[in-house]
Amino acid sequence: MDMATMNKLMECATFANCYPRDVVFRQGDPATHFYSVLSGYVRLFRQNSEGREADIRVCGPGDSFADELIFGGDTYEYHAQAADKAMLARYDINRVRNAAQADDGMLARAIAGSLAGQLQETMDCIANDRLNTAVQRVALYLLEQAEGQESPASFRLAFQKSLLAGKLGLAPEALSRAFATLKGLGVHVHGRIIEIEDMDALRAL
Amino acid sequence: MDMATMNKLMECATFANCYPRDVVFRQGDPATHFYSVLSGYVRLFRQNSEGREADIRVCGPGDSFADELIFGGDTYEYHAQAADKAMLARYDINRVRNAAQADDGMLARAIAGSLAGQLQETMDCIANDRLNTAVQRVALYLLEQAEGQESPASFRLAFQKSLLAGKLGLAPEALSRAFATLKGLGVHVHGRIIEIEDMDALRAL
Repeated sequence: MDMATMNKLMECATFANCYPRDVVFRQGDPATHFYSVLSGYVRLFRQNSEGREADIRVCGPGDSFADELIFGGDTYEYHAQAADKAMLARYDINRVRNAAQADDGMLARAIAGSLAGQLQETMDCIANDRLNTAVQRVALYLLEQAEGQESPASFRLAFQKSLLAGKLGLAPEALSRAFATLKGLGVHVHGRIIEIEDMDALRAL
Repeated sequence: MDMATMNKLMECATFANCYPRDVVFRQGDPATHFYSVLSGYVRLFRQNSEGREADIRVCGPGDSFADELIFGGDTYEYHAQAADKAMLARYDINRVRNAAQADDGMLARAIAGSLAGQLQETMDCIANDRLNTAVQRVALYLLEQAEGQESPASFRLAFQKSLLAGKLGLAPEALSRAFATLKGLGVHVHGRIIEIEDMDALRAL
């Protein structure tokens, strides 16, 4: 995105500080804004009529959400809740829609690029859910986080384990069981610090 | 999309007739084209290193696929296979990308609109997979298909049951078991014809 486009978008923005568990919007609310995450994490989840929740996505710095509504849709289709202290930019959907109609296509291309990335990510998520066991999902996530490191690798989880469980489509107990299984393969968990003795052992799962 | 934009897109198109099980493209192939379905059905699926397959999406008339690659990405991230006799329009990604750079934003907005719809659909799929049991997923699908009908409702499945199983993230045997359970609630299956005695019984699941 060039500076002119960025400035056009910034004219439609306000900023919001969120505290852990703050509701950003509710499923079914009229859609008035979309968001981008400047810092922290936001959890997107769907709730069914009995109140059961399913996580759809965890958004971190650089991610945007609800921007799929710029080109249509008048209610939010999921809940968004701060999972952490988070700083968000908040864009008026109508103003961005009008700006995207009026400019020479730069803004529409930027939005399309963002939506394309999110679509790829959500398709990955479906495939991952459907192809991989709980242990494989966790191993894959750890390998992604340790990318570029040699064995033994070590890093800090970006967010708390309950959020990680939801992101991977697992109940918290299923995540605990997966970590217990991975312990046998040399994965050590100390709070949010993860140590992987042998990355190849995880790759072979 | 207005006629001028449509014509611009049509200049980048060729047409392809597919027979059942024809490969449209393979995961890992260089991405050269995206597609829209004019008739029939195309199955998108991911394959892991052991050859296990997970369906990501079933595309029918009016749907497009691989258009998330217009704004970046140089290989296909999944397999596309005709599930039926299918007629496809095939668009040169580079030409469409150039056309979207050159025009006044109409094409980019049309692409963004399409990607937004697909993103909503794939987020629905994740939530549905994570929230609902096999029986609930099948019931929900049947209710969608029978929308607008009164009880008793009756309709023909748009595609074969093996494809439906994949679309719902179920093994074929799990789909059969779900239909067996639903029989007790008055759902009768004769080949691809479905009869629902009482739609409210399914809604209550």
